Amino acid sequence: MFGFTLLGTDGAARRGEIRTPHGVVQTPAFMPVGTRGAVKAITQRDLVDLDAEIILGNTYHLYLKPGDDLIARAGGLHKFIAWNRPILTDSGGYQVFSLASTRRIHEEGAEFRSHLDGSLHLLTPERATDIQAQLGSDIAMVLDECAASSVGPDVARDAMQRSLRWAGRARQRLLALREGPVADVIVTNAGQAQFGIVQGGLWPELRTESAEATVEIGFEAFAIGGLSVGEPVDVMYDVVSHTAPLLPADRPRYLMGTGMPDDLVECVARGIDMFDCVLPTRNARNGQLLTSRGPLVIKNARYAEDPEPPDPGCGCYTCRHFSRAYLRHLYIAGEMTAATLNTIHNLYFYLDTMKRIREAIMFGTFERLRLEFHQTFSRRPQH
Amino acid sequence: MFGFTLLGTDGAARRGEIRTPHGVVQTPAFMPVGTRGAVKAITQRDLVDLDAEIILGNTYHLYLKPGDDLIARAGGLHKFIAWNRPILTDSGGYQVFSLASTRRIHEEGAEFRSHLDGSLHLLTPERATDIQAQLGSDIAMVLDECAASSVGPDVARDAMQRSLRWAGRARQRLLALREGPVADVIVTNAGQAQFGIVQGGLWPELRTESAEATVEIGFEAFAIGGLSVGEPVDVMYDVVSHTAPLLPADRPRYLMGTGMPDDLVECVARGIDMFDCVLPTRNARNGQLLTSRGPLVIKNARYAEDPEPPDPGCGCYTCRHFSRAYLRHLYIAGEMTAATLNTIHNLYFYLDTMKRIREAIMFGTFERLRLEFHQTFSRRPQH
Repeated sequence: MFGFTLLGTDGAARRGEIRTPHGVVQTPAFMPVGTRGAVKAITQRDLVDLDAEIILGNTYHLYLKPGDDLIARAGGLHKFIAWNRPILTDSGGYQVFSLASTRRIHEEGAEFRSHLDGSLHLLTPERATDIQAQLGSDIAMVLDECAASSVGPDVARDAMQRSLRWAGRARQRLLALREGPVADVIVTNAGQAQFGIVQGGLWPELRTESAEATVEIGFEAFAIGGLSVGEPVDVMYDVVSHTAPLLPADRPRYLMGTGMPDDLVECVARGIDMFDCVLPTRNARNGQLLTSRGPLVIKNARYAEDPEPPDPGCGCYTCRHFSRAYLRHLYIAGEMTAATLNTIHNLYFYLDTMKRIREAIMFGTFERLRLEFHQTFSRRPQH
Repeated sequence: MFGFTLLGTDGAARRGEIRTPHGVVQTPAFMPVGTRGAVKAITQRDLVDLDAEIILGNTYHLYLKPGDDLIARAGGLHKFIAWNRPILTDSGGYQVFSLASTRRIHEEGAEFRSHLDGSLHLLTPERATDIQAQLGSDIAMVLDECAASSVGPDVARDAMQRSLRWAGRARQRLLALREGPVADVIVTNAGQAQFGIVQGGLWPELRTESAEATVEIGFEAFAIGGLSVGEPVDVMYDVVSHTAPLLPADRPRYLMGTGMPDDLVECVARGIDMFDCVLPTRNARNGQLLTSRGPLVIKNARYAEDPEPPDPGCGCYTCRHFSRAYLRHLYIAGEMTAATLNTIHNLYFYLDTMKRIREAIMFGTFERLRLEFHQTFSRRPQH
């Protein structure tokens, strides 16, 4: 059911197509984050209007509330949230490290207390696989141990090697689920693919070891984890440059949790096919609009009477209809509609950037796009 | 520019059409409330999708923030909020009484402190007229003194008579604005109509005096104010029954601030053509869905696994796509999308009810609709 076709390349940049039980995803692709079964502040029809081809759900949140059992009984996440395009779910591991109030990692898995009610949970590689099987996402991720970027090589190696052992267990579990019924697990998407995750922190030799061993286990495709967790951006780019070529060319490569708009361009240039990040949606709710020139902080007084749309060159619903002055008014007044309109703009900008990247790769003009993008876009507010 | 055509009647119920500089409104009509230039939790395209033909803006809020001067310089409220269908603005008087932190009424006007920053303001009949001229709504309301429903007849009479004097001043001001430029006022909608408001509390003789004198002043049309402020519903119906026939049959009649779905049916039956109320939007944000059977409190545990839409007979976007279980999850999780989807449903229910009322009047079946509505709808949660 899962498949990938490489349609073309331009340098290391790749243009492809992922097939899933819920349809096709054009790559390079950006996946809006729908943490709790909803992309914050917008509706599913807004997502379709934005031409989002795939969204991400967070296993940690959905497991805690409303629970994967409930979602499985409802027929799976697609049916529960009324989204019939592809969904990728993470393993929950990253949130255990970043959100849970306490956690203890041992060989069996990650023990943690819910940030919602303090209840105690054990997330094992098998359990993370089962939960995602019940959610029925099109792409499931293996549970990994995501060490902080500040740890030394020994801690990073230990975490990476544990992640490998966990990956093997997660794969075994998925194969068991595919073979036949497993007690207490309702598989809601028989065509679910599973991606392995390369860890190893910022050490090239650890990344190499992790990549080779993860590929050896055998997954439908592979991700690079443990980046965009606080390291300098050029260090992140170096790790991606080193790691991406170690992954099979005939499978999509997913860089987890990245990033700023220029990160997307730079990592496509290094052979990445899939991205996700909360940045466009989270920053939208905080009043930061991401435009072709850079971030625009809508609450600034200079926009109080500005009749221009956030980005005059943008074709999104927000930019086609609303002025900076109106968006500033909505934000200052605390109207929810501010979050909605800003989210629509930011996601459009991300998805449109990916579309332009895809076209440039097919036309062999990706390097020109990359150059022009950097000439226009700045991370500092430019307006 | 403003006009009204009575297309048909069925008993006291009336089917009509209001013409404004921004298009036509079919009556009986319900106006969603867009307090600060936005109907809370939804976008303008959602409103168009709901077929909302007119919305209401609150002068008090828009005057304080972002200010009518700023909106006038932007070309008026329609342009500022990118809504090119009709808009009605209230006078700000009701919010002075209900929201301002302190207020003092004297013959000149209402002196109040902003609930936002404590700043001191004087709202006179002339000023309320000027502000609405700058906002450029299609229908402006005169400033009136809205006495509490608990006051005695003397206080009610004083407030009603002051409202009459204020109405005369407001009309004079509008006529002056129509005749030529007035210093410091930018008229952004030359075809703006002005409605007078009948006051008089719960005393029929005061309502009669107010109606006759307000009609005598001469306005494009007339509203009934000072109801739905805490009085029993049958008392409200009685005042409407008494007052509506005192207003010219060839002008639309607007009942301000009402109400529950069954109020709409009952007041149409008494000759009302226009309604507004925050109830569908506010209750939506509080998790109360209004359906043909009655209110549904979505957070209730009984909906945790309910695969039905809020109202199986409803054709709104929310009911066509989402289950009670999903809507409950969104509400419990605190997702903004809950407010959006609930608002879409509640407004659809109100607007669809008005549409069915309009059709029934034309077919001469309004009494049957009224009967069936009451047989199905209950104010107590029924699900």
